[in-house]
Amino acid sequence: MALIVQKFGGTSVADIDRIKAVARRVKVEVDAGNRVVVVVSAMAGVTNQLVAHTRAVAALHDAREYDTVVSSGEQVSVGLLAIALQELGVPARSWLGWQIPIRSDGAHGKARIESIETAELARRLATGQVPVVAGFQALGPDNRVTTLGRGGSDTSAVALAAALRADRCDIFTDVDGVYTSDPRIVAKARKLDRITYEEMLEMASLGAKVLMTRSVELAMKYRVPLQVRTSFADAPGTLVVDEEGIVEHALVSGIAYSRDEARITLVGVADRPGVAAGLFGPLAENSINVDMIVQNVSHDGTKTDLTFTVGRADLDRAVALLETLRGEIGYARLLTDDKVAKVSVVGVGMRSHAGVAQRMFKTLAEKGINILVISTSEIKVSVLIAEEYTELAVRALHAAYGLDAP
Amino acid sequence: MALIVQKFGGTSVADIDRIKAVARRVKVEVDAGNRVVVVVSAMAGVTNQLVAHTRAVAALHDAREYDTVVSSGEQVSVGLLAIALQELGVPARSWLGWQIPIRSDGAHGKARIESIETAELARRLATGQVPVVAGFQALGPDNRVTTLGRGGSDTSAVALAAALRADRCDIFTDVDGVYTSDPRIVAKARKLDRITYEEMLEMASLGAKVLMTRSVELAMKYRVPLQVRTSFADAPGTLVVDEEGIVEHALVSGIAYSRDEARITLVGVADRPGVAAGLFGPLAENSINVDMIVQNVSHDGTKTDLTFTVGRADLDRAVALLETLRGEIGYARLLTDDKVAKVSVVGVGMRSHAGVAQRMFKTLAEKGINILVISTSEIKVSVLIAEEYTELAVRALHAAYGLDAP
Repeated sequence: MALIVQKFGGTSVADIDRIKAVARRVKVEVDAGNRVVVVVSAMAGVTNQLVAHTRAVAALHDAREYDTVVSSGEQVSVGLLAIALQELGVPARSWLGWQIPIRSDGAHGKARIESIETAELARRLATGQVPVVAGFQALGPDNRVTTLGRGGSDTSAVALAAALRADRCDIFTDVDGVYTSDPRIVAKARKLDRITYEEMLEMASLGAKVLMTRSVELAMKYRVPLQVRTSFADAPGTLVVDEEGIVEHALVSGIAYSRDEARITLVGVADRPGVAAGLFGPLAENSINVDMIVQNVSHDGTKTDLTFTVGRADLDRAVALLETLRGEIGYARLLTDDKVAKVSVVGVGMRSHAGVAQRMFKTLAEKGINILVISTSEIKVSVLIAEEYTELAVRALHAAYGLDAP
Repeated sequence: MALIVQKFGGTSVADIDRIKAVARRVKVEVDAGNRVVVVVSAMAGVTNQLVAHTRAVAALHDAREYDTVVSSGEQVSVGLLAIALQELGVPARSWLGWQIPIRSDGAHGKARIESIETAELARRLATGQVPVVAGFQALGPDNRVTTLGRGGSDTSAVALAAALRADRCDIFTDVDGVYTSDPRIVAKARKLDRITYEEMLEMASLGAKVLMTRSVELAMKYRVPLQVRTSFADAPGTLVVDEEGIVEHALVSGIAYSRDEARITLVGVADRPGVAAGLFGPLAENSINVDMIVQNVSHDGTKTDLTFTVGRADLDRAVALLETLRGEIGYARLLTDDKVAKVSVVGVGMRSHAGVAQRMFKTLAEKGINILVISTSEIKVSVLIAEEYTELAVRALHAAYGLDAP
């Protein structure tokens, strides 16, 4: 008998028929003798509509009221799924964030879970009852509803699995697993049977929108075995596990890309200590995330060029801020480019193998793709290129690292 | 400076523009120096859709889950209205039933409010903040969401007004007040400036669907001055008050009617003690409300006929039950008629005036309308007639009691 947390996304509960199908799927696990906790998102489209409502009332709105409004979608889906389960003879009841409670900090709109009271859930699980828990929502320190940010239901599920020491957390979504690359671009992309938390984190943060980054971090921290699978078929998905859970490591597990970046170059920056701090400090204070950073070697020891990337949505704010800092930093010109893309090769195997980056540069050079910026970590190499080469680069790299399906 | 509770129904918050209009209306009271509590229903149509969802999942569903689902509509409207108020510079925050809390009994789907914690609301009112409270919902003894039945937001508003000792409770709805009769039938119906709680209760329970009966009972019990008015114009509505609040009483305040009745006649019932108890006891136990009752004088001292009315929706269940009781009660035949209507004249003035009933009977006789059953109370006379005469009877009585507009 295992304890399994099953999370169903919005497309899985998009209408009454699908909610009934989810109930049947839950019943299969229950009938197999397992204890099951279900976490659900709002019915597909509902949250977007609620967000649009709040924006229509006021462009800048109180995040606490936003959370009150947008969390209502999950309240509907948990009630309906509990009814559907009862109709199949499965004892079930819905749980809202404040009823458990799942406690979070007070960062409305992007709150972080701090603790979960599990005693009552555990007691009911022991009697065979299936808790149907509203994802995405929690109870803030001010006794108001908080939400965990878009995709936050994944985090709810993993946090519950960690708190309840579940044997597995299944994330049911509209894709059937994690792929070696985006199948919409790479026809030969293959579904991975297993991937490590670290790789999944890089894939998630690099734009493979299968799992919310925060949920993977949590799963890694608490060693919760995650499974990404589709609710529309009975196939096994991709298991996200410890490195020990993977016997043979491929050199590279996947090719990720992101079109959410923009490049900023400051030309003729004074080459003296403190310039980087005076630049990136104010950006961070204004919640503008800087990703890749390259500083050229100074030619004459007085001036240098500094290139970095920010989220494309933050570009205008970043430029405005940098212009106010011009006197302080003392740059000659500010260049921007939002027609760029970041392409990355990811794999824990590269820790123990040299030559991974070299193969990437060679492959891109053969296709005539110019590399604008490079950044690396232990398990990934990322390059910034002109956006128009994205598909070409991703496909070439997928082939070069032997990822194409046989 | 007055404390005013303003309740807005679903049509008043049907879309974003109307929600903004409600915010402007609330601001008028705030700017006039009053403290205001706002109670809102779900946006028009939302609750019906949620009810349809629960029915689509299962015909018979857990009332606790039903309440979880259908109460979500108010969660959306309070958040949006709070944002709209803030946008106008009015300090406001939303309150869900469980946050205040408004405590109810555990009768899910038709719960009754038992207590309201007002300390925090009062504290915030004193600072000028406008609490925007979700109507229709409360917190049950099991820490789950309860709902108060359809139209329950009226009750939420009156209960809050009573608990906060408000100076007035304004019910904004899609009609501009209480009329002497249904304007769809009686073109000459006039809006009443004032009506007593007792009369309003009779009007409400007799089918004038302006206010939920329970909310009028509460207002009467706690002497909360109620005002029924439209949110679509700035006209004063109808004030529902104590008898002392009305200087000159009309003999009759209004003509109400209901088409929700059905008549049952038991022919040849044994005329002995205990028969009525043996009949109406089981009906009450099965939640079948009996309204009008008439027992004819027995001709020979052994058999009599018994006629009474039940809700039309309960007729089939009542007949099935009576058939199981046939042996015990011993009636010869069971007759039913669901093509009947109840027409009533209502007015506290009739307490001190004779001849009100007589004028009713005479008026109906002149129009050739046969009276099937009569029942009276201190402030109303009701008759059951064939349904096809409803409009004719209501119009004739409206004229006969001098209610037609001048």
